[in-house]
Parts: sequence; C-alpha cells; structure tokens
Amino acid sequence: MFRKKERHSDPLIRKLMKLVGKEHVLHRQADLVAYECDGFTLQRGKARAVVFPGETKEVSAVVRLLHRERVPFIARGAGTGLSGGATPLGGEVIISLVRMKKLLRVDLDNRTAVVQPGFVNLKLTQAISKDGYYYAPDPSSQYACTIGGNVAENAGGAHCLKYGVTTNHILGAEVVLPDGEVIRLGEDGIPDQPGYDLLGLITGSEGTLGVVTEITVRILKAPEGKQTILAYFDDVEDGSRAVSDIISAGIVPAALEMMDRTAIEGVEAANFPVGHPLDIEALLLIEVDGIEAGFQSEAEDIVDVCRKWNVREVKVAKDEQEAAAWWANRKTGFGAMGAISPDYLVQDGVIPRSRLPEVLNKIRAISQETGLRIANIFHAGDGNLHPLILFDAQKPGEKEKALQAGSRCLKACADAGGSITGEHGVGIEKKEEMRFIFTDEEIEAQTRIRSVFNPDNLLNPDKLFPQPGRCAEVKQEIKEQQGLKV
Amino acid sequence: MFRKKERHSDPLIRKLMKLVGKEHVLHRQADLVAYECDGFTLQRGKARAVVFPGETKEVSAVVRLLHRERVPFIARGAGTGLSGGATPLGGEVIISLVRMKKLLRVDLDNRTAVVQPGFVNLKLTQAISKDGYYYAPDPSSQYACTIGGNVAENAGGAHCLKYGVTTNHILGAEVVLPDGEVIRLGEDGIPDQPGYDLLGLITGSEGTLGVVTEITVRILKAPEGKQTILAYFDDVEDGSRAVSDIISAGIVPAALEMMDRTAIEGVEAANFPVGHPLDIEALLLIEVDGIEAGFQSEAEDIVDVCRKWNVREVKVAKDEQEAAAWWANRKTGFGAMGAISPDYLVQDGVIPRSRLPEVLNKIRAISQETGLRIANIFHAGDGNLHPLILFDAQKPGEKEKALQAGSRCLKACADAGGSITGEHGVGIEKKEEMRFIFTDEEIEAQTRIRSVFNPDNLLNPDKLFPQPGRCAEVKQEIKEQQGLKV
Repeated sequence: MFRKKERHSDPLIRKLMKLVGKEHVLHRQADLVAYECDGFTLQRGKARAVVFPGETKEVSAVVRLLHRERVPFIARGAGTGLSGGATPLGGEVIISLVRMKKLLRVDLDNRTAVVQPGFVNLKLTQAISKDGYYYAPDPSSQYACTIGGNVAENAGGAHCLKYGVTTNHILGAEVVLPDGEVIRLGEDGIPDQPGYDLLGLITGSEGTLGVVTEITVRILKAPEGKQTILAYFDDVEDGSRAVSDIISAGIVPAALEMMDRTAIEGVEAANFPVGHPLDIEALLLIEVDGIEAGFQSEAEDIVDVCRKWNVREVKVAKDEQEAAAWWANRKTGFGAMGAISPDYLVQDGVIPRSRLPEVLNKIRAISQETGLRIANIFHAGDGNLHPLILFDAQKPGEKEKALQAGSRCLKACADAGGSITGEHGVGIEKKEEMRFIFTDEEIEAQTRIRSVFNPDNLLNPDKLFPQPGRCAEVKQEIKEQQGLKV
Repeated sequence: MFRKKERHSDPLIRKLMKLVGKEHVLHRQADLVAYECDGFTLQRGKARAVVFPGETKEVSAVVRLLHRERVPFIARGAGTGLSGGATPLGGEVIISLVRMKKLLRVDLDNRTAVVQPGFVNLKLTQAISKDGYYYAPDPSSQYACTIGGNVAENAGGAHCLKYGVTTNHILGAEVVLPDGEVIRLGEDGIPDQPGYDLLGLITGSEGTLGVVTEITVRILKAPEGKQTILAYFDDVEDGSRAVSDIISAGIVPAALEMMDRTAIEGVEAANFPVGHPLDIEALLLIEVDGIEAGFQSEAEDIVDVCRKWNVREVKVAKDEQEAAAWWANRKTGFGAMGAISPDYLVQDGVIPRSRLPEVLNKIRAISQETGLRIANIFHAGDGNLHPLILFDAQKPGEKEKALQAGSRCLKACADAGGSITGEHGVGIEKKEEMRFIFTDEEIEAQTRIRSVFNPDNLLNPDKLFPQPGRCAEVKQEIKEQQGLKV
C-alpha cells in the first residue's frame, strides 16, 4: 500500500504551493480565521488563501499568477492596521510579508538602512541604537507593526510632530506592481528624484498601487537627551490654549499629547496607572529633546506657558523611570479603554490646532446626544484627535450607534477645515467619509491614478475610495481621453 | 474719418483678449522674444502668445479655450528656471502668472500662509519676519523667483539640508487641470491627507500636470540665532571627509556649502570678493542655527572636525556683516563664473555624501579630457553638486563640447548611485539623461501618470521625459488596459 499524495482540490492553491512551497500556503478554514480582519475588528471577511513568499521573486511570481487568473489579492504586514486596509472582503488571496523580515543593510555614513517589508518597526531602532541612531516614526504598535505596513499606511506616531510621518523617512522602495513587474522608486539617499514623486504616491496608498518588497529608510542620530513635562488642567480650553502657545513660542516638542477626563479615567483603571488625579479635565504630556541646554530651557518655557493658562499642577519628570511610566500610561491608552467599557471604537480625525476647543465641544455634544461616552486621546501638537467611543456590543444597536457617532466626529473635524484621518488610514472603515473632504472630481482624479497602476482593481479592491456615484460616466470619460491619445 | 478698430488676424488671440483683456495678451514678435527661454538659455523657441490672467477663473477660462482648440500651453512664473521648463518649443501659448502675485492670508496660529503663484519667494519672509517667522525654501534666485515656480520645480536652496525642499513646506494648492477644471489638493494645515498624495505628485511635476493658482505653505519660527564657519583646505578629500564627519557627529547644519579652487577663483574675481586664498583646493561654508547654547557648541565641534582633517585655516564669523559677506560671495557664485569665462553651463547632480571624493575625481578627469575648465560649487551636506562648465560659445564646437561634458558629469553622478538633478529640474535640458536613472518601465509608469491629468499632452508638451523608445507599444498597452477596465 502507498499513501496517495495529498492534492488540494483548488488548482489555484496547488499553483501557489508550487511557487512558494506547500508549507507557506494557508488554505484551511480554521487557519484563515486569523486573517478575517486587521486591528479594525468591526468588519470581517473570508480570504481564499494566505501565501507567505520568502523573497521578491516569489512575490512577483505570485502576483503574476493572480493577475493572470484575475484573482483579487491583498498585501499584509503584521495586521495592526486600524481601518481594515488588510481585511479581505471575500475571496482575496492574502500575500503576507512576515517571512521577509530581514534588516538588509545599515549605512551610517549616509544615514540609511534597507529593510524587507516584514521587518518590525521597533527592531530597527534596537539594531542601531548602540551606534547612537534611531528610526523616527513610532506608531503605538511599533513593537509589532512592520515597516512595509507603515509605508502602506504612511504611519505616524507620538513623535511625528517634530520628526514627520513615514513619508518623510522613506528614501527608496522596491515595488511589485499589480501585474507582477518589479520597479525601484527613489534612489538611496537622494532627497529629490526627478520625474514624478511615485515614491510619495505609493507611501500611504494603503496597498492599492503595488506591493512594497524592500524599503530604504532614513535613520537619525539620537538626540543628546530629552525631558518630559506633565501638566494637569481644570479646563480643556486652558489646556488647548497652552498647546497653541507652546507652538507659537517657537518650541517644537518631540511629542505633545493630550488626554481628557474620560481618557484619564481609563488609563488609571488599566495596567499602567501613575496616579493622575481623576477630577482634572485635561492632561498634557510633553517631550522636548535635543542638546541639554536647549531642552532644559524649553522645558522651563513650557512650564511657564502652562502656568499662564491656569494649570493646576505641572511637573518635570525627575528621572527616566518616571518619564517612562508616564509614557507607558499614555501609549497603552487605547487598550486601557477596555478597563472602563466592554467595547470601544477609536476614531482618527485631524483639525487645525487653533480649532481644538471648538471641535472638542462638538464631540461632547455628540456624546450627549448619543448617550455614548467619548474619551479623547490625541496628538495635540499636530491637531490629530483620537476620540474613543465607548459602547457595549451586547446591547442591540449600540455598535451601529457607535459607528455613527464616530462618523459624526469625523464630520466635525472635516467641517473645521480638518480631515478624516491623521494616521490610521481610510481602508474599508472610512471610505464613505472620504466624501466629507473630497469632491467627486477629486475622488475621480485619484481613482484614475489607481487605474494607472492597478487597472483591473485586483490589488486590494474596494478599499480607500467610496463607490463612485457616477461610475459609468467616469469610465466613459477615461475611454474617450485614451481614445484621443492613442 | 474714424479709425478702424484694431482687430488681430489670429482668432485665437482675439478670444484670449476677450477672456483676460486686450492689455493682458502679448502677441507681437518683438514682445515674444523675452519669452523664448527661461534661465536655461542654450535652447530657445517661439511662443504663439503670452497671456496674463488676473485670477483663477481667468486661468481656467484660458485653459478651457486652449484645451478645446487643441493648442499647447505652458505656465510660467518669473522664468528663473535653469532647465528650460518654461521654454516654448514652438507655437505654445504661455500663461504667465506674474499678475497673480498677492499674499492672500497669513495664519500665525497655525503657521501657514496662502499665496498666489506669482508671489515672489523672498517677499514672504519679508512680510512675516517682523513677527519672527520665515519661509524656509531659499533658492539662490529667491529675490525674483515665484512660489508657483518653486512648486513646479520643487525648488531647494542652501538651507534645504536642514529644512527640506519645497515639497516639505507645501500644505495645499488650488490647481487648474489641463482641461480647465479647478481642484483643491491638500488641506490647509493638515499634514497627512487621506487618499493618494496628489499634492506631492503636482509638486516638482515641472508644470506638466496642472497650473497651480493658489498655494498654502508652512511658515517657520525664525531660529533664535545662527553662526557661520568658514574653512580652507589644501586637499579636496580632506574637505569631503570633514563634511561626512560633521554629519556623522549628529550636527545638522542649516547649510553646508563647498567650493573648489576654480570656483573660488571665479567668486574672488567677481562682484563680492572677500579675500579667500586662491591657492586652496576646497572651501567649506557652514551655517548652524537654533538656540544660542546649541549652535555655539555645534560651531566649536565643527571647528574641531575641520582641524582633524588638516584644515589650513578655519574661522567663525566675527559678526553678522562678515557672515553676510561670505554668503553674498557664495550665493552669486554661478554668475561669478562670467568673470573668468565668456560662457558657462551649470549642471546639477546629486550623489550619496560618502561618494564625494570619487565623483569629484571623475569630474576632474572629464575636465582634463575635454580641455574645458570645470568649477564646482555645491550643497555638500546633501551631496548636491553644481559643476560649472566654462566655455567660449564663439569657438566652434565648444558649446556642444560643454553640453557633452555636462551630460558626462551627470552620468558620473548616476553611476555613483546618485541622480541627474538635485533642484534645477529636467525640463528640456535633461530629458535624455532621465535614462541614466530610470528604466523604460519606470519612465512609462510616469508618462501614464501624466496621461491621467494631461491626456492630450497639451500642457507643457515634450518636457521632463525622453521620447519613449517604444512609444507605439506603450500606447497599445494603455489602450488594452483601459479596454479591460471599461
């Protein structure tokens, strides 16, 4: 007797196994459950399979196959995204890049590093800190998220106020286009490439234009030192005015974070309490860095500004341990909401700094009208709000109410001249809200760009943009234009 | 007797006059001569007319007319560009934006300003300096060049080492698309817009994607103070090593400029001599800024690094006047070549900082082989070289020899992992050199992007990209892709 060789009934799965090795393809329903969503858990879908290529050539071969067979597909990093960008809608093949996790090169002379897309964000800083360097973008998920995912989402972090978001730190990329062709964008260490800025276009495109398979990033010399300041306010407006005045004074803090009363209740009830008073209305957590003389004098100026705006208490961290405790308390803030609510939904809006008090009032009104508590944690320095809408999914209709409240918060941001996402992306979550900030024409201009790279819309389909209201017309127009050109 | 009303024989000119007013259209041959080229004077062409719209509506109306009548057109600022981006190739209508020169708004709270495209770069800093703010991008032509032109070229300047190029300072734009439609890109004061980064795409697109009619820029708080250091080296390699070591030490100077022996001969023979010795091989001019304690200690560190690399003499400016004199001497460096050569051609290549000595050797070899003197002035901190090729256009064949030498310098930069332009753009001058750094596929991906915005290639035709080698195939491919999509 001989055992019959196992052979999968789906010919596509067999072909994928041939390309990347049998052990690098998941296809059983039980295995696919983990890939039903990313960090945005309110919507789920079933993938057809998950493949784990080990190098660019395999990514290209897999993409060529899927393109040829007209099978939709999605690139995925660590799955920490918060807007459903890596969530399948049904039937997609997921290309997971977690096996491609090497740090390929570090060039201290030219201050660059080259990584594979599955390389974890925090590991880069860990690898170069002994030489006094670090990688600046620091999303809260940096211990898990990958640099490939960061590029897709143009990830930010608490320190993007001073150091910019991912796009400011990406110098080059190798990209597999949706037909399997491999191109290089940008040039290692060259700040301004001629031609169109395709590297900038790919960065933040939420996986709709190509699969990034290698990334050259800028690394920075670590600052000589830093100092953290903590300030408690009895009035949100006072806290907001202090934020504006700190920036107006010409200080660019490395980070400038704010939490409101409900958020403080959450973080103090969770894993990293530090004894914040529970009856204050706003807390500012501020980090300044640079050379000793510089940040010490900036810290003093910040204390003065807080006093001017009626701060109840303001203190400078007495040592690194205290500062680290304050930051751990803040950085785990989203998850901390679990301590005071069965479920929560995090939103991500941006507003001009000067409109903070007005928009916070609007969010308070939304909370009162819906009866849902809303906590606010935000990167106050660059006006990036994170309203956390607390709800109980067990109560009928509450999830829907929370989603609506989130959408209304975004509308409030858009109406104040802001935007619907600061760093979490649009994904599937905020497609319709794109209409708050873009006209039909502007959305069309963008979907035409997608068509250049991704003409069949096989790569991450139905993400990022709302369904066009006048789809047929647009297509006709494209056809006519091309007809004229050809 | 009554005078017959003057009526132009070209119906297009009459229509343009109707749209913007008769006095705002130039069409006589004598008037068009000034528009035959921009700052790149080696190639010239004849425009059909020049129109001067006074507001966005007029720009849109003019563009709609030209689009309808299939007449090619070019947007033009002050005409200070150095690669022929605003030069007509023959028959284009030039849309000059110099009448749209208002500073529309300044918002100190949110650190933004809104300008019309014809607003002159330096005037922005002049308008806000009383409040302690400035606009960072500072091309050498900043007393004349317009911010609209800066956006088109993604202009840099001596200070882009620390503060970034134009794209890092543009927050939003109003754009007239090549069919006359008006869209807004970016949102005032919002760092990371969702969707594709079309604003980044327009910036540096050299006037091939749309006509920018309003721009929101970031303004910065002026640094507390600054210091300038001047260092003379007997050996170019020593100077280059000093550059690398300054950067490796974690200092980010506001500017880090280098001149070689021939360049020094030129600037000392021209209008702003400051007594640089004529027998040194390299000069570094370095500016540090920030808070007093910070830049003074950085200046000391820089002096130490220069001493380590065998500097002949290094000095810190004793006052602002001395620093200003050193900078005037440097900033007029290109023009200064006129003092030692009848003609000169400026090139603009970029290389990784660490390859400086090697590429300078190659440029020296090109000089020896062609018999043409080449002076080097460059932004050493970010590896942006400006070889100045000295020649005499009266000598038969010398202009062509200079052009070839320039192209070979760019090839040397590209071969060292660099690029063919740092800040001057591609325009008509360097179209063919695009092949040094881009594959056919990469150029095609870019021309497809152009087709999205500019399908008929009426806006600034035949600039930026080389004629495709396999034009017919590409068009066929686009047609097929669109066929699949539609």
